[in-house]
Amino acid sequence: MERNYKTQMEAARKGIITPEMKIVAKKEYRTEEEIREWVAKGQVAICANKNHKCLDPEGVGSMLRTKINVNLGVSRDCKDYDVEMKKVQAAVDMGAEAIMDLSSHGDTIPFRRKLTTECPAMIGTVPVYDSVIHYQRDLATLTARDLIDVVRLHAEDGVDFVTLHCGITRHTIDQIKKHKRKMNIVSRGGSLIFAWMCMTGNENPFYEYYDEILDICREYDVTISLGDACRPGCLADAGDVCQIEELVRLGELTKRAWEKDVQVMVEGPGHMPMDQIEANMKIQQSICMGAPFYVLGPLVTDIAPGYDHITSAIGGAIAAASGAAFLCYVTPAEHLALPNVDDVKQGIIASKIAAHAADIAKKIPHAMDRDNKMGDARRTFDWEGQWAVSIDPETAKAIRDSRAPEHDDTCSMCGKFCAVRSMNKALEGEYIDIL
Amino acid sequence: MERNYKTQMEAARKGIITPEMKIVAKKEYRTEEEIREWVAKGQVAICANKNHKCLDPEGVGSMLRTKINVNLGVSRDCKDYDVEMKKVQAAVDMGAEAIMDLSSHGDTIPFRRKLTTECPAMIGTVPVYDSVIHYQRDLATLTARDLIDVVRLHAEDGVDFVTLHCGITRHTIDQIKKHKRKMNIVSRGGSLIFAWMCMTGNENPFYEYYDEILDICREYDVTISLGDACRPGCLADAGDVCQIEELVRLGELTKRAWEKDVQVMVEGPGHMPMDQIEANMKIQQSICMGAPFYVLGPLVTDIAPGYDHITSAIGGAIAAASGAAFLCYVTPAEHLALPNVDDVKQGIIASKIAAHAADIAKKIPHAMDRDNKMGDARRTFDWEGQWAVSIDPETAKAIRDSRAPEHDDTCSMCGKFCAVRSMNKALEGEYIDIL
Repeated sequence: MERNYKTQMEAARKGIITPEMKIVAKKEYRTEEEIREWVAKGQVAICANKNHKCLDPEGVGSMLRTKINVNLGVSRDCKDYDVEMKKVQAAVDMGAEAIMDLSSHGDTIPFRRKLTTECPAMIGTVPVYDSVIHYQRDLATLTARDLIDVVRLHAEDGVDFVTLHCGITRHTIDQIKKHKRKMNIVSRGGSLIFAWMCMTGNENPFYEYYDEILDICREYDVTISLGDACRPGCLADAGDVCQIEELVRLGELTKRAWEKDVQVMVEGPGHMPMDQIEANMKIQQSICMGAPFYVLGPLVTDIAPGYDHITSAIGGAIAAASGAAFLCYVTPAEHLALPNVDDVKQGIIASKIAAHAADIAKKIPHAMDRDNKMGDARRTFDWEGQWAVSIDPETAKAIRDSRAPEHDDTCSMCGKFCAVRSMNKALEGEYIDIL
Repeated sequence: MERNYKTQMEAARKGIITPEMKIVAKKEYRTEEEIREWVAKGQVAICANKNHKCLDPEGVGSMLRTKINVNLGVSRDCKDYDVEMKKVQAAVDMGAEAIMDLSSHGDTIPFRRKLTTECPAMIGTVPVYDSVIHYQRDLATLTARDLIDVVRLHAEDGVDFVTLHCGITRHTIDQIKKHKRKMNIVSRGGSLIFAWMCMTGNENPFYEYYDEILDICREYDVTISLGDACRPGCLADAGDVCQIEELVRLGELTKRAWEKDVQVMVEGPGHMPMDQIEANMKIQQSICMGAPFYVLGPLVTDIAPGYDHITSAIGGAIAAASGAAFLCYVTPAEHLALPNVDDVKQGIIASKIAAHAADIAKKIPHAMDRDNKMGDARRTFDWEGQWAVSIDPETAKAIRDSRAPEHDDTCSMCGKFCAVRSMNKALEGEYIDIL
C-alpha cells in the first residue's frame, strides 16, 4: 500500500491516523486522536523509518510511558557480532524500547541491516562514529559530503533515529576555549565534530547543510535526535553557558525540522546536581517547544564509578518525572570499560526502575497496576504472584531460595518477626507466636 | 569529669558547648555556636549515650551531611556473632555513621555491649525485638513493665538511640481494620506492638508510659527515634490517613520529649511514589518542628525485589534533598532474605550515593569537593587520582583492569573515540587520529 505521506508528522498534520499511531495509542491507553495530535505538534515522536519493516512502534513523549535506550555495537575490543546480537535480543526481552548501534569496528553495514530486518525495537545510530570506520579514513580527511552521505546510508538502511550534533558551530570552539570548562566536551560525537572543525577549519557540516539533512530524514522518516555536544561531563559544568546556548540552538533547529515535517528528539544531560534537574527539564520543554527530551543520565554525582547505573537511575527518575521522555541507559562500566553482558543487564534494569518510578509519579495510565498486584501478593505470601510482577523474577527468586526461611509464611530476613505474618494473624484474632 | 547536664539538648539549652558539639562542628564545617543552637532547638540530634565511651559523635539534622544507618545483628538463620562483628567493621570502614543492632536470637547482651565498647558509630536498637528474646517468653506473656525494663537495659548498655513505636494506640487497631490498607502494618516493631495490644487488650506501653520512657532516656542521653508503625508498605498505602495521623501523634510526642530535654528523631516512609516524597518531608518538618527525619527508603516502586537498594537510592536521594537527615540503608535482599556480606556492601554504597547526591543538592559545605577532584582527574587521565576520590575504588579499578584498553589515555569503552582524548588534543592544536 502506497503511503500518501512521508513522515508520521506529515500524516498527523494531514489528519491521517497511521497504523503506527494506532499501535501506540493502544499501548499507551490513549485515543488515536490524542496520539495524532501530539505527533502533529511534535510532542510525541514515533521513530519509524519506512524501511524498518519489523518495527513494533513506540511513541516517545513526556505524556507517554518513559522509554529506555540501550547502547550496543561492536568495537575494536569486542568484535563478535553474534555476541552483540544476543545482547540485542536480551535487551529487547528485558523491555528496552530502543537500541542504539554504536559499532565502531569492522564492516558495520551487515549488523545495522540485520538490526533493521530482525529487531522490533527502535534503532538509532550516531553516523559520525560510523564515518571513520565506513570510509576507513581518518577524521581529518573526511569531507562534509562524506559525512552527509553516511547519514543517507543509515537512512536507507532503515535506522529510525540518528543522533546528529547539529548545535555546535565554529563559535563553540572559542566558547569552549574561553569558558574553561572542567570537562570540556564529553559527548563522543560532539568531540569528533569539534575535532573535525579544528582540523579542517570548516563549519560543522550538520549545521551548515542542515536543510539537506532534513530532506534525507523526511524521505525515510528518520527522526533527528539533536545531540548535545556540550552536555556537562561533571557536576561543575552543569547548566553553564555552553550547555544552555547549545540548547537554544537546538530549539531553533527543532523548529526548522518541524517546518519540513521531520520528527525531532532533543538530547540532554549528562552530569548534573539533583537540584538543577527539574529546572533543566522545564527549560528544555519551553525552549524546544515540547519536543521529546532524551537524556543520558543525569548522573547526580561524579564519584561513583562502578555504580553509575545507580547515580543515573536517581537522576533519570527525577528527569523523567519532570518531563524527560526517553532515558539512555548507563551501565556500571561507564567511565571505566566496555560493558559486558551483566553490565548491560544491570544498566537496563536500573533504567527500567527509573522510568517506571517516573511513570507512577507522572500518573501515566495504568503505571501502578503491577505495583498494586505486588502489594496484594506480598500481603498474602503469594510468592509466585510476586515473581509474576517482578522486574527481574529470576534474580528475586534466586535471592530468596539461596537463604530459605524455616516457614513458608516468612522470609529469612525477619523469620517469625515478619510484620506481615503478625498482622495477618492479629487481624484474624489469632495468637501470634514469635519465639 | 562530672557533666553538669544530662543530655546534649540540656547542655545546649544551658549554653554549654559539649565536646561532642565541638567534634560535630569541625566535621560539618560549622561553628560550635551554630551546632549548639540547632541542638537546643532539636533540629540536630547528637545521638551520644553517656555510656558509649568510644563514640565518634555525629550530628543528625537536615542542614548537616546526610547520615546513613546499617541494620545488622544475629538472627535464627545467621547466628555467628563474629561474622556480624566483621560486618560492623566493614560498614564503619565504608562510611556508615550508625549501626542498628536488630539481633533476634540467642544471648543479645554481649554483642550489644561489645558494640558500645568497641564501635565508634552511633548504635541504635529496637528494644521490642529484643524483649521476646531477652525474656525467652512469647509476646503475649510480656507485661508493660517487661517492655519498659528492656528499654532501660539498652540505655544502661550504652545504646545511642532506640526506636520506639510510641505513636500507635488502641485507636489504631480500629483504624487499620476500617481503612483496609493493602499492606496493613509492615514495620516489624510496629506490628509487634499492634499484636501485643490485640492479644493483651492493653494500651501501647510506649505510649501509656511515655513519661517514664523519657526519664530513662534523659538519664543516659538516649535519643528516641519515634518509630512509624504505619509507614506505607506499598505505594498504594502512601500518605494515607493511618500514616499521617500517626505523624501528627509523633509531633506531639516530639514536643513532650523536648520538654524534658530528650533528643528526638522521627522515622518515616517506606514505600512512596516519587511525586509524594517532597511533600511528605515538608509535612514532617512542620508537624515535628524540624526534628531530624530518619527514613527507610522511600522505595519508589514495589516491583523491583532484588534491586531495592536502587529503588531506595532514588527515593532516599529525593527525601534527603527535601529535608530528611538520616537514611536507613536498604539492601538488594530486602523483601526476600537476610542480607549477606555482599548485600550489605551494595546497600551501603547505594545509600552513600543517595546521601552524597542530596548533600550536593542541599549545598552542604564542601559536599562537591570530591566531585570536582574527579572531574580534574578524568580530564587529565589521572587514574590514580580517580580511584582516590571514588566511593569504591577497588570495584572501579577492577572493572577497568578486567577490560584494559590498548592505550592508557583511553578506556575500553570508547578506545580512540574517547571524547576526552579528542578534546585534549584538539585544544592543544594536535592532530586527532581515530582510526
